[in-house]
Amino acid sequence: MDRKRRLREALNSRQSEIFIATLRPNQLYFLDHPDPTKVISRPNCFAVMFGLDKDVIFPGRWISNACRDLLTNCTVIEDRWIDKSPRSQLIDFLKGNKFKKIIVDEPLLGREIKNEISQSIVLVEDIGCLLRRKKDAVDLAGLRHAARIADLGVTAAFGVIKPGISCGDIAAEGEYVMRKAGAEDVSVAPAVGQGTYYLDSAEDVSRIVAEGDMIFIDLAIHVRGYLGDITRAGIVGKGTAEQRLLLNTVKRAYSIGYNQMSPGVNGDLIYGQVEKCFGERGWTKYFVHHLSHGLGLGNDIPKISRGKSDTLKIGDALSCEPGLYIPGIGGARVENMIYIGNEVTEELTQCPFDLPMDF
Amino acid sequence: MDRKRRLREALNSRQSEIFIATLRPNQLYFLDHPDPTKVISRPNCFAVMFGLDKDVIFPGRWISNACRDLLTNCTVIEDRWIDKSPRSQLIDFLKGNKFKKIIVDEPLLGREIKNEISQSIVLVEDIGCLLRRKKDAVDLAGLRHAARIADLGVTAAFGVIKPGISCGDIAAEGEYVMRKAGAEDVSVAPAVGQGTYYLDSAEDVSRIVAEGDMIFIDLAIHVRGYLGDITRAGIVGKGTAEQRLLLNTVKRAYSIGYNQMSPGVNGDLIYGQVEKCFGERGWTKYFVHHLSHGLGLGNDIPKISRGKSDTLKIGDALSCEPGLYIPGIGGARVENMIYIGNEVTEELTQCPFDLPMDF
Repeated sequence: MDRKRRLREALNSRQSEIFIATLRPNQLYFLDHPDPTKVISRPNCFAVMFGLDKDVIFPGRWISNACRDLLTNCTVIEDRWIDKSPRSQLIDFLKGNKFKKIIVDEPLLGREIKNEISQSIVLVEDIGCLLRRKKDAVDLAGLRHAARIADLGVTAAFGVIKPGISCGDIAAEGEYVMRKAGAEDVSVAPAVGQGTYYLDSAEDVSRIVAEGDMIFIDLAIHVRGYLGDITRAGIVGKGTAEQRLLLNTVKRAYSIGYNQMSPGVNGDLIYGQVEKCFGERGWTKYFVHHLSHGLGLGNDIPKISRGKSDTLKIGDALSCEPGLYIPGIGGARVENMIYIGNEVTEELTQCPFDLPMDF
Repeated sequence: MDRKRRLREALNSRQSEIFIATLRPNQLYFLDHPDPTKVISRPNCFAVMFGLDKDVIFPGRWISNACRDLLTNCTVIEDRWIDKSPRSQLIDFLKGNKFKKIIVDEPLLGREIKNEISQSIVLVEDIGCLLRRKKDAVDLAGLRHAARIADLGVTAAFGVIKPGISCGDIAAEGEYVMRKAGAEDVSVAPAVGQGTYYLDSAEDVSRIVAEGDMIFIDLAIHVRGYLGDITRAGIVGKGTAEQRLLLNTVKRAYSIGYNQMSPGVNGDLIYGQVEKCFGERGWTKYFVHHLSHGLGLGNDIPKISRGKSDTLKIGDALSCEPGLYIPGIGGARVENMIYIGNEVTEELTQCPFDLPMDF
């Protein structure tokens, strides 16, 4: 398995034998199973130790049986109610083995291990996040699949928008379609209101859509662990000239951002181009959030935000999501999922920008 | 407002002027607004300071506008992107006022305040949780409403169970109904599998229900901030005599537990009665989790679990949720929401134990 080989190299280069993964994305990424989300089905698997001949799982109570029954070629330290906590079992395991250097992906556990295991050097470093950055074929298939389901969901949610409907009812439609299509979890957040400039705020489900509202829907799902993420914006009705300009400016900013996304380009430059586009309207100050976050199993790089951006690389997957939230006009954000390929940059999202509503 | 009066008494008895609430349940409970979930619509309002003439909100970026626009008679420390972090703004506020004693509901922030504010005594104590324990009329209406929607959801989810359906499709139906009924968020987790004894493990959405499976569905929702929580169990088809005995034993254990729930009764005694019921079949070791948790806006007491139980009081709201997960037979759990009233203990959950499936 190529992922394990690259982990081994990363461990070797740090003179370390083992990587203790407490973060679910890292656990899913390195576990030898055709669909690890079936086994680590919850975000509370205490830890998986990678680097030995067999992976060692400290599953915690809730998935202890599943790990024991569904995993082969792994050592599962069962957690029945008569057992010590998985934390204590992990410490015992480390005490019983003389590791030279232990890498942990989480600072709190790292400190505890440092206190308990004097014989080993402990390094807190999320090497999982680093190694997960360059997407492989499994990642790409996973992200494409999640993007497809997100496309379906946002289309269904927009399809029921009309004056008088509640934000909760809009969300219900999008979520249902994505659940039926296989999403493990869904979160659909419509932001609406004429003249508001809330971001994702006051997402109360009882808010009623009115003619003339600007509306945007940001949704996030997971499919076999992979994030599907999309935002679409619109106007309920014809809207004002200013609202249409706002919506078109955000779409234009998206295109500018997306077209800059190539290997070797620093994200600050891309962020600057998007700001410049907004600046032509005097709206820079209403762009108050990041432009991009990484995509994958979770906690992914690269990121692009004001003054804190990564330089893009081949194999990156990331969002592009400019938005403006202007007092007295409304809010708009559009977001696609993007992959920086060997040859070309491509949109994993396929859904069009303008989605029909129900009137 | 009675809640504020009780908070004032709690502060006075501790010689303190202010309570800094970082936990959303505490923020929602004390905020003067007809529906605080419309304002603090996300779990990331940094802090609300209660105890002064006007509440002081440090909302953080995402709900800053909503707090400013929707709250009256509060001081909102806005968080635009040009501002310092809400954490820094809170520290500045504390430095500018000479408080004798500050109570904080969260240890990490408590430590930071201790380090920064030498003039004040800092006490880390979740007095919000203590004061929220005795349910008032608003709590009770909120819990009844959430219970009603949970009843609808679990009935809808069971209503589509048949051999061949996936767990994801079952969840989709329950979630849809509850979203349409006004739930802010929903989580439906079917656990199924002939002969498994997983608890909530391996909840993968692609798992297919088969004739002869035992199945239970635990679901949790929030409605106006209040938790709705229910579990129902069944057999897909007639099942074996052993499976039927398991299911009936769990229902009997529920009745035993519920009937013991009265003011002044120690939870360990109730847990023991449930264990005794299971022990008559030799199944005690398969009851591996708590019996009860508190109900309300979140992070609620009382709790009943093996050797770590509270004594019940008038005004308590809590779950009763015995379960057994037996290798080779299956798993069953039933759960109702319960209120310990002045005169009687009552079930807030109204849905029957046996729910029809789709065949």
